[in-house]
Amino acid sequence: MGERIHATYWLETSDDPARAAEVIAGEQSSGTFVALATETPELKARSGARVERIELLGTATTPSLPTPKASARYTQCLLELSWPIENLGACLPTLMATIAGNLYELRAVTGLRLLDLQLPPSFAAAYPGPAFGIEGTRRLAGVATGPLIGTIIKPSVGLSPTETAQQVRELVAGGIDFIKDDELQADGPHCPFEDRVTQVMRVVNHHAERTGKKVMVAFNLTGDLDKMQRRHDHVVAQGGTCVMVCLNSVGITGLHELRRHSQLPIHAHRAGWGYLSRSPALGFDYAPLQKIWRLAGADHLHVNGLRNKFSEPDESVIAAARSVLAPVMPSAALTAMPVFSSGQTGLQAHDTYAALGTTDLIHTAGGGIFGHPQGVSAGVEALRASWEAAVAGETLAARATRVPALAGALEFWR
Amino acid sequence: MGERIHATYWLETSDDPARAAEVIAGEQSSGTFVALATETPELKARSGARVERIELLGTATTPSLPTPKASARYTQCLLELSWPIENLGACLPTLMATIAGNLYELRAVTGLRLLDLQLPPSFAAAYPGPAFGIEGTRRLAGVATGPLIGTIIKPSVGLSPTETAQQVRELVAGGIDFIKDDELQADGPHCPFEDRVTQVMRVVNHHAERTGKKVMVAFNLTGDLDKMQRRHDHVVAQGGTCVMVCLNSVGITGLHELRRHSQLPIHAHRAGWGYLSRSPALGFDYAPLQKIWRLAGADHLHVNGLRNKFSEPDESVIAAARSVLAPVMPSAALTAMPVFSSGQTGLQAHDTYAALGTTDLIHTAGGGIFGHPQGVSAGVEALRASWEAAVAGETLAARATRVPALAGALEFWR
Repeated sequence: MGERIHATYWLETSDDPARAAEVIAGEQSSGTFVALATETPELKARSGARVERIELLGTATTPSLPTPKASARYTQCLLELSWPIENLGACLPTLMATIAGNLYELRAVTGLRLLDLQLPPSFAAAYPGPAFGIEGTRRLAGVATGPLIGTIIKPSVGLSPTETAQQVRELVAGGIDFIKDDELQADGPHCPFEDRVTQVMRVVNHHAERTGKKVMVAFNLTGDLDKMQRRHDHVVAQGGTCVMVCLNSVGITGLHELRRHSQLPIHAHRAGWGYLSRSPALGFDYAPLQKIWRLAGADHLHVNGLRNKFSEPDESVIAAARSVLAPVMPSAALTAMPVFSSGQTGLQAHDTYAALGTTDLIHTAGGGIFGHPQGVSAGVEALRASWEAAVAGETLAARATRVPALAGALEFWR
Repeated sequence: MGERIHATYWLETSDDPARAAEVIAGEQSSGTFVALATETPELKARSGARVERIELLGTATTPSLPTPKASARYTQCLLELSWPIENLGACLPTLMATIAGNLYELRAVTGLRLLDLQLPPSFAAAYPGPAFGIEGTRRLAGVATGPLIGTIIKPSVGLSPTETAQQVRELVAGGIDFIKDDELQADGPHCPFEDRVTQVMRVVNHHAERTGKKVMVAFNLTGDLDKMQRRHDHVVAQGGTCVMVCLNSVGITGLHELRRHSQLPIHAHRAGWGYLSRSPALGFDYAPLQKIWRLAGADHLHVNGLRNKFSEPDESVIAAARSVLAPVMPSAALTAMPVFSSGQTGLQAHDTYAALGTTDLIHTAGGGIFGHPQGVSAGVEALRASWEAAVAGETLAARATRVPALAGALEFWR
């Protein structure tokens, strides 16, 4: 019995779901719109995608997405398909064309969203996955327990390398664990990558020499491959411990190639996630996509945050974080570290911890740290204290009686 | 006056459009959710994205996309933003994070679609664009005038290299100009890339030696970068004249790196286009995205086809094809060849020609060629005759009186 790839979709169709399922399975394997003499029963049995399961969910009278094939009724269901690995081999790019290729455009499809993906062991044999993951990140950041408390350089763009280093100076002095570039800031003429890294790492290294704590800075090296490799090498040469890349900007091939080259953890930003996920009837849940990104080498994966400033609901955020912490497959964990961001403060610590049961994550806050009336140091301390309270099962109010920085933070966090 | 990048969106918002536009411009440049002391007026003037134009289109009472920020009214408008190139430099991956990053997820946004993109000359200086384009493709395919008449190897998957070569034998004997792999078929264990190329090119070369016509075969080399490079080199070694890649599978970085390596035209497949475009309130029109793919090196770009078997309307298909034939920017044409496919026959020739006014395109048909009662050769001849009729301003019926293969085709094309 050969290996098979399983994908589960939310499907809405103007057709009979069983027939629509067969059309999708055909289009994404051996079939096409017309019957072909060369698609023999033997070939179809060997190479055809298989409809594993159809679970009816309900019907609608209007289609979720426009279609030229109107109907009085649109049926919604869960659809599980499977493919023999012999169709494509353990190749992530062709996996995308197979599970997320031309099927979204089919006429009978008025809604299609990839919910789940189960990959066979061959993929873990072909792709190394994160080189550092949780354990390697903790080691490099010098944070044995609790979340990495982090922040983002803001303004997103506009600061010079010197101004960026000045902001980093304040943050490392304040006891932060982790700092990242904004996704808009890679190598703009106003803040060239190499100069920024050099100036920032001078601050980070100086602090490390004095205190023993080397703050992890995720430098956004997103770009063409040769430039990403050069930028990575510069970060290594300056003693840096992390690089950041925008997944949807460089693609699977770009990330995998960076992973092959990289000696540092890869902090993976999902800018553009909205166009892949914002319509409930189209695109992707995070769970299947993040498996692909982890196989390609992502060590840290953004998951938004509870009560974030974007439109993503909390359930979706937690489901995403859980998926990042779950094994890619039973035989290969390849665990990555979820990154929480967007309007975060210590007020989200308890709920986040309750939902995940772990502190193996990066919690980044901007205003929640910088806005502290007693300064950055108090902001970092307050966020850390919030997590300590969550782990200890203590309320923020109780902990605040012993931690003045937290008491101060509770005045302005909301 | 420095260079600026201009992007135009269809926007639907629960907020006042002018305020929503400022939020988007801020989020995608120097701003964030909270006011920052470091975002000085000087910094904002230098690095902030600028709202260039808001054109009100109408209102709706229900949001196109779900939002936690409900409203009694959702306003739809055209929004044009611009960015100074100093924010990012001429970098396509960071351009994506800038024009198509976190903005789709904003709460006040209940619909956002990128419609147009105007790039400054720096991008054409940084990226070479298609190495072959229309002229180079015509030269390699030996087709000086008229469209390249093409087809796709089907079944999509399941044929062995020998069976694939057998199908190619029939096609080249039938006078076809162009053949492509299916997007599902790259290097599966059942049809390994190298063996397929070797066997197919033996057929193609043999035919070329006898007739002087070397049929262009687009071999789908989609995969990890090192493998794509090896596969490309094998195609070159076997005398092949084209490679194919799935854009959304390899990403901008993967395509650009392939372009740097390639000695052959790159046939760019857009499998997955549905998840980027199927919701009218989300994602992308093709016009802006295909500019990015052309800068990164695509020579041929899929545009679906008139009266196609998918859900895309004809207006969208023609707009896509026109965008591929239009210059990327006034100072750099970087023209690519549009590829028409999906349920195509000679019946679409007149309308396609009328809409574009050129035959600088690849027209692929499957059933429209293979289904011909007199065989593949007659199918190819009929499709070519349809285009000759279109160019000559003659009806198919009139031309069919002189071309028996076309007369035969008109019996079964519908």
